Amino acid sequence: MTCRTVATMVDVITSSANPTLKALRSLHEKKYRRADGRFLAEGLRIVAEAVETGVVPEMLVFAQGHADHPLVARLIAATEGGGGQAIATTLTMLNRLTLKDNPQAVVGVFRARPLPLAQLDRTAARLWLVVQALKDPGNLGTILRTGDAVGAGGVILLDDCCDPFSVEAVRASMGAIFTQSVTVTTGSAFFDWLRTGPGFLAGAALSGAIDYRRVSYLAPTFLLLGNEAAGLPADYAARCDVLVKLPMHGRADSLNVAVAAGVLAYRVIADDGA
Amino acid sequence: MTCRTVATMVDVITSSANPTLKALRSLHEKKYRRADGRFLAEGLRIVAEAVETGVVPEMLVFAQGHADHPLVARLIAATEGGGGQAIATTLTMLNRLTLKDNPQAVVGVFRARPLPLAQLDRTAARLWLVVQALKDPGNLGTILRTGDAVGAGGVILLDDCCDPFSVEAVRASMGAIFTQSVTVTTGSAFFDWLRTGPGFLAGAALSGAIDYRRVSYLAPTFLLLGNEAAGLPADYAARCDVLVKLPMHGRADSLNVAVAAGVLAYRVIADDGA
Repeated sequence: MTCRTVATMVDVITSSANPTLKALRSLHEKKYRRADGRFLAEGLRIVAEAVETGVVPEMLVFAQGHADHPLVARLIAATEGGGGQAIATTLTMLNRLTLKDNPQAVVGVFRARPLPLAQLDRTAARLWLVVQALKDPGNLGTILRTGDAVGAGGVILLDDCCDPFSVEAVRASMGAIFTQSVTVTTGSAFFDWLRTGPGFLAGAALSGAIDYRRVSYLAPTFLLLGNEAAGLPADYAARCDVLVKLPMHGRADSLNVAVAAGVLAYRVIADDGA
Repeated sequence: MTCRTVATMVDVITSSANPTLKALRSLHEKKYRRADGRFLAEGLRIVAEAVETGVVPEMLVFAQGHADHPLVARLIAATEGGGGQAIATTLTMLNRLTLKDNPQAVVGVFRARPLPLAQLDRTAARLWLVVQALKDPGNLGTILRTGDAVGAGGVILLDDCCDPFSVEAVRASMGAIFTQSVTVTTGSAFFDWLRTGPGFLAGAALSGAIDYRRVSYLAPTFLLLGNEAAGLPADYAARCDVLVKLPMHGRADSLNVAVAAGVLAYRVIADDGA
């Protein structure tokens, strides 16, 4: 059933068969996100982050009865003010939409806007983060979050990475999906593009690499991290200007990739880049 | 059905009603782990890491037909050589034990040996990681992994943290659960203990904190990180010798806690500690 309440002038959905909710639920799957071009961000905090950044949801789904919550009201107003649609539904429907047990007051539906490589202004930032065949959406979201913290220009995804617009990656990004540019491309297209302008490519590696503290990171630096299990492919490592490693004092030979990205990124921005 | 094959002399379990498998499956729940004192580590890689570290499983459950795999054979031998029990089962049973779709060749059952605070030798390491009310087992496992990488003595868990012996934390630790000491205590017991000997307590904070690069980290340093959402309680922050922060250049006001721990830990070990 879809009806229109006079008080708030928002649509109210109470049936799980509603085609809008069904379409939104399908956005949990990458193939539907790709076809549709939109993605979901769950929870007040992250949707509020988006709106504060100037990114307004195309749709805001909120729990009926929460419209008086000041923040929810602000998000409804922002959504409608931006030409988007606010939809009230039941907590049960909202939980089905989020596929989780812990209820969220709102779900925002946003347009995915990956930045084509050709439009990336490399001189706009001191540092860019580049990941290759990254598989874990939590790691990818965490790297986006770190990119925001260090003032990186954005994250460039090479080859077969997990989807930066999955709910899990968006959640781990803590809003950075709205502040960092996201570029999805291939290794070979990236290397071709990189060498058409300035750019210092530092790859994180284990063998043949030097201590990350002994390197001068020229601006702009592109920090390249490989797959969680396999690391960088040898031919990618060979195309880097430098291979850097973090000292390992224990039994393990590697760090979590998002932790390694964080340590290296903070080193790069502490360097004046000249 | 439990039978004994002559060829390998290991027990073979083919029924999901088998009490041993049922007991092991219960180790996915914290309350049963606590009562039982054992925990599960899934997968060849992590069980092999344990054995290489000198930690032998009390039980090794492996997929029937995999006993000839060289690494599985070595783990079976190590388990039996250490007085433990090797159990063959079907892939279906093994999948039920791991609660996952991706089949693992082995599951190791280990004795949880948290280190009591009173037995912790603080001078044995340059750095100790301390976390308070940490909720995410992936973050905790990642911090254990970083602790191993930086040569920390171990991780000290204050107050109501997630369980370091959950399958998820053990997996994220990538074997560091076997190399890092793990101490579970309360904030007040920790502060009392800390002040009975040398120890420089550096807390990660946002307000009232100074740039982490401007601090001399005396040895041994205890690096204290708070809950993912709330950060450090004010009275814990007040008891630190110094509060440090990472510069934030974007919109967000914080990093993922495991990333922050990594950046800070690498800074501490780069300092000679004098």
